[in-house]
Amino acid sequence: MPVCVTDIERVSAAVVESYQGAEVATVHEAQGRKGLLASYMTPIYRPAKIAGPAVTCEVAPGDNWMLHVAVEQCRPGDVLVVAPTSPCEDGYFGDLLATSLKARGVLGLIIDAGVRDTATLTEMNFPVWSKVVFAQGCVKETLGNVNVPVVCAGQLINPGDLIVADDDGVVVVRRTEAEAVRAKVQAREDNEAAKRERFAAGELGLDIYKMRERLAEKGLRYVKTLDEI
Amino acid sequence: MPVCVTDIERVSAAVVESYQGAEVATVHEAQGRKGLLASYMTPIYRPAKIAGPAVTCEVAPGDNWMLHVAVEQCRPGDVLVVAPTSPCEDGYFGDLLATSLKARGVLGLIIDAGVRDTATLTEMNFPVWSKVVFAQGCVKETLGNVNVPVVCAGQLINPGDLIVADDDGVVVVRRTEAEAVRAKVQAREDNEAAKRERFAAGELGLDIYKMRERLAEKGLRYVKTLDEI
Amino acid sequence: MPVCVTDIERVSAAVVESYQGAEVATVHEAQGRKGLLASYMTPIYRPAKIAGPAVTCEVAPGDNWMLHVAVEQCRPGDVLVVAPTSPCEDGYFGDLLATSLKARGVLGLIIDAGVRDTATLTEMNFPVWSKVVFAQGCVKETLGNVNVPVVCAGQLINPGDLIVADDDGVVVVRRTEAEAVRAKVQAREDNEAAKRERFAAGELGLDIYKMRERLAEKGLRYVKTLDEI
Amino acid sequence: MPVCVTDIERVSAAVVESYQGAEVATVHEAQGRKGLLASYMTPIYRPAKIAGPAVTCEVAPGDNWMLHVAVEQCRPGDVLVVAPTSPCEDGYFGDLLATSLKARGVLGLIIDAGVRDTATLTEMNFPVWSKVVFAQGCVKETLGNVNVPVVCAGQLINPGDLIVADDDGVVVVRRTEAEAVRAKVQAREDNEAAKRERFAAGELGLDIYKMRERLAEKGLRYVKTLDEI
Amino acid sequence: MPVCVTDIERVSAAVVESYQGAEVATVHEAQGRKGLLASYMTPIYRPAKIAGPAVTCEVAPGDNWMLHVAVEQCRPGDVLVVAPTSPCEDGYFGDLLATSLKARGVLGLIIDAGVRDTATLTEMNFPVWSKVVFAQGCVKETLGNVNVPVVCAGQLINPGDLIVADDDGVVVVRRTEAEAVRAKVQAREDNEAAKRERFAAGELGLDIYKMRERLAEKGLRYVKTLDEI
Amino acid sequence: MPVCVTDIERVSAAVVESYQGAEVATVHEAQGRKGLLASYMTPIYRPAKIAGPAVTCEVAPGDNWMLHVAVEQCRPGDVLVVAPTSPCEDGYFGDLLATSLKARGVLGLIIDAGVRDTATLTEMNFPVWSKVVFAQGCVKETLGNVNVPVVCAGQLINPGDLIVADDDGVVVVRRTEAEAVRAKVQAREDNEAAKRERFAAGELGLDIYKMRERLAEKGLRYVKTLDEI
Repeated sequence: MPVCVTDIERVSAAVVESYQGAEVATVHEAQGRKGLLASYMTPIYRPAKIAGPAVTCEVAPGDNWMLHVAVEQCRPGDVLVVAPTSPCEDGYFGDLLATSLKARGVLGLIIDAGVRDTATLTEMNFPVWSKVVFAQGCVKETLGNVNVPVVCAGQLINPGDLIVADDDGVVVVRRTEAEAVRAKVQAREDNEAAKRERFAAGELGLDIYKMRERLAEKGLRYVKTLDEI
Repeated sequence: MPVCVTDIERVSAAVVESYQGAEVATVHEAQGRKGLLASYMTPIYRPAKIAGPAVTCEVAPGDNWMLHVAVEQCRPGDVLVVAPTSPCEDGYFGDLLATSLKARGVLGLIIDAGVRDTATLTEMNFPVWSKVVFAQGCVKETLGNVNVPVVCAGQLINPGDLIVADDDGVVVVRRTEAEAVRAKVQAREDNEAAKRERFAAGELGLDIYKMRERLAEKGLRYVKTLDEI
Repeated sequence: MPVCVTDIERVSAAVVESYQGAEVATVHEAQGRKGLLASYMTPIYRPAKIAGPAVTCEVAPGDNWMLHVAVEQCRPGDVLVVAPTSPCEDGYFGDLLATSLKARGVLGLIIDAGVRDTATLTEMNFPVWSKVVFAQGCVKETLGNVNVPVVCAGQLINPGDLIVADDDGVVVVRRTEAEAVRAKVQAREDNEAAKRERFAAGELGLDIYKMRERLAEKGLRYVKTLDEI
Repeated sequence: MPVCVTDIERVSAAVVESYQGAEVATVHEAQGRKGLLASYMTPIYRPAKIAGPAVTCEVAPGDNWMLHVAVEQCRPGDVLVVAPTSPCEDGYFGDLLATSLKARGVLGLIIDAGVRDTATLTEMNFPVWSKVVFAQGCVKETLGNVNVPVVCAGQLINPGDLIVADDDGVVVVRRTEAEAVRAKVQAREDNEAAKRERFAAGELGLDIYKMRERLAEKGLRYVKTLDEI
Repeated sequence: MPVCVTDIERVSAAVVESYQGAEVATVHEAQGRKGLLASYMTPIYRPAKIAGPAVTCEVAPGDNWMLHVAVEQCRPGDVLVVAPTSPCEDGYFGDLLATSLKARGVLGLIIDAGVRDTATLTEMNFPVWSKVVFAQGCVKETLGNVNVPVVCAGQLINPGDLIVADDDGVVVVRRTEAEAVRAKVQAREDNEAAKRERFAAGELGLDIYKMRERLAEKGLRYVKTLDEI
Repeated sequence: MPVCVTDIERVSAAVVESYQGAEVATVHEAQGRKGLLASYMTPIYRPAKIAGPAVTCEVAPGDNWMLHVAVEQCRPGDVLVVAPTSPCEDGYFGDLLATSLKARGVLGLIIDAGVRDTATLTEMNFPVWSKVVFAQGCVKETLGNVNVPVVCAGQLINPGDLIVADDDGVVVVRRTEAEAVRAKVQAREDNEAAKRERFAAGELGLDIYKMRERLAEKGLRYVKTLDEI
């Protein structure tokens, strides 16, 4: 049953390129507030920012054998996504695997478990988003799967889907939706840039977004003190 | 029922000024070990330190509409305090609202929920103490209250109370007690400065605080090895 | 019953010296994947790295009196290890105690509870691994024990055992095993250095560790797409 | 500074009587979704249900001395509410204090900390809502306050406020609002009873609440399969 | 984009029937240790056991509007599965919705969020597996999806998949695999029944499973005391 | 290195007998508030109460192989104590192992990990105190140790030590201290029985324990209302 899928369809290089610099919060909003991994997925150092197609790896708890299988499937620009089949804090990944991934041009790692050798990973400038930093070692006894759909930190991730990660966390965009979402990201970025100028100039959101009337309709009362109520 | 109170009494500017540089741990001790927000309230970057009067904002879970109402109530030197009515990790606050607050001279944000755009907030040097970093977006459907007493991370905070926050966390000082507490903070700081010199010179707390006798009275035994017992 | 043991046997200075620079993950592996403290034990700043013999201090929850007793038992190069008898987040330790420990040449603190004054500790370059950063103060009413075996963050630590701590966390090595373990650490370091070069050159773990055959035996199938299954 | 307030104004006996049988969820809704204590406040046995005025007790972490002071302030029909000044799991309360409270006619205990002797408390039929069950003992060294406003499990509770607790948790109703809220509770109960019959008869919420049109307006599409999209 | 799929393919009635009485642990093992929802998914009362096809409902945090849409899609024997798009503890579900589901013959609810009215649900004998019991109410403002694949408590669940839940938790079996898995469940049950008799008669697992030789090969040593080592 | 110790010294049968009926809270207090396992160690059903000598079993995370080795070392009246070397929620133990232990006269299980088949265990009346209920299965690949000192839920437990467990949790008493502690338990029980009568008769702890004077000395003020302060 354990399987390694070798021919996955990746989100196109052009689309990936267009996401460089895009922010997780903006991408998440642009695709309708979906795809965000759990808040415990944090980067081992800040700032850190990557965007690339997912190579997925499903592992047994406490067993990092399949990571070596996954490495071979990675290409330059990929992001490796690792998900254990039950909750686990063990340190599946350290500087040797990072060296191997870096040699293949992989951008970073997303792992719903532990990571170790974080001082060295920081020096290497190899970013990792993980559930925890923990040196607890793994065994190599049980097979898993590479490049199958996985659930990672609460989100379904298919191989080839686009992963965007920054200081705020990690978001997944479906491969087939990534281009359309990018247009919406751009629209939001343009809009936010315009808004930012107005906010910086001292305008209020109440006025920029014309909220005052709707607030009043919903029943918001302005009073000088609580005694007025 | 939802209300925005416009005329709050703030802790005086002179008192606020006197707290610049005061440390959370010292303030907490000086007022009798009270007022400390929960340990999960951590700054998005370190070091960070602020002190100023609270503008409070009570929000529905997952709904950041009232933040825009609260912004208008903020003055230079204020600290915005946001508390949801039930536990929530959503990212209520990002760089646009920070731009707006910064334009009004607000010092920082205390929020018992999530924050996003942390890379930009760090670049902007706008400090936030939050429960979590999370990009999950909010809606704007439900009203809340501005400048009413709120419970934030386990502490009651009244509008106008003094907020002091640094790398160790956040403490609230009642508006009416802030001046008296400041005197005690000063006394502690003076005392600690004197003690620090003695510690640095190699004196022991056992001697500085004359603890040896009381320890003996309470029954502490010194033995060479556990076999002696 | 409360006791302070004064004559503890420390892991030898030569052995301690040999551990300078050794990494927590490597030490943990070298001694057979044991001795690792819980993952919540994190340093207040990164990078940080120490190695030295443990002086242990068992304290009541919310009571830091015994830390002063423990300080006197510390010698240059020691690591102070503090464990409460029930779970506690209070801030047992701040800059005054750090000044005292530093004056005695202590390398750092391991505490299964809270720490405060972290901005000052960072400036002082005095590393602390703790469960949490929290300014909550302690009382000085209840005795505990110094230099008895303690359970700290899930591990038994005897006075004189070797503590190694870095960005990944904290590991304890039995005093009597430290020399033998060091040899294994060296063997691992040498092996990893050799492996790192091969990984950096693009070789795969699948080949370096000759995993392909065993993976096949265990039943791993390579397929082009999931439709093949 | 530590104080015990002896003359508190309790919500009236008639109002308390009217809340017997009212459910936490209904009360919480009736007063506009506020006043609910954190979800970790669970009863030591089920079913359990009480309603009565709060006597409040603020305690130091790990110190249950003030509970004895609070007991004396309790009258028949009261509910004792205990809140530590910082998070604590210790077992402040056991069967002796329960015997004392029961002798005074107190209905039950709400405590944002630990409780012990739960087997005996269950036999005694004395209900307790707590953060945790934990046998860890307390000391009696530090004073606190009785019948001052406290923050308990995230909610402000004033002495004399109405506490309603059942299998779902605990809700507080302001003393001055309890009568008005009761009318709204009744209205909800009547409405729910009517609705329950219709639901039991097989009617759908979509029809009972006339939701279909608004759902369509908001954009809900009904499709036979996902391929239609 | 929000969608309600009306024609889902359910695991066949015959297969569902064959799972009545099957245990979660056995099913999980039989399908190769996969499909188990997170350990925080616990039943509101014990014992409780159900098996049936999933109707899935994806909801916004704090918004239970879509549950009413989902109810209409349920048939006798179904299990309703509710998953919020970001972590949420709110009480989405109470006795009115349970009355509605029960009227339609639904067996129970699986919800990765909060539930309320648990005393009434227990009396009604309507089982719910949830993340938490919490009375916090929801709004009805935001659409979601019905009968799309959802991630619930860490597992992907497709509409029509088989849900098995008992006192140990919840497991999902793919619709297309349910029949094959059932055969393996039966084999395990038969095997366990035989083993149980031998264990009850005093035989050891060491002998039943012939473990002694392999343990020795792996290096297990039997010693009278630790001094022998 | 993995070892199974066969000749352990158990706390004497007479002493064990004397502990039948003793409560965890009382034992914990009687031995000076030590030995209590973490609050997350809860029984799978209530009421439950056992007392007996520990057979200890140290296991790898996710690997329950050594439990079979441990079973053979158990005698009638023993309590099996299982501790993984790093935090783990997997379900190490189910009804087959319980049948085996029950056949050998073992009283119950203490496990700092998960347990499954809880419905059957409840029917069998075989009590288990665990960190969690979780059906996640284990492998049998890695050796551990039997009857060596282990750290279980934060406490050191030696083979042969006395384990007492009830609805409040679990406490360990050193084998060599169990007899002396029992005398103190008896003294507390006698004292509590006398106190309970006085409390039931309406006497206050303030008077029974003569606390009024010391409270006044420490500065407690009684006031009619807060306005008096």
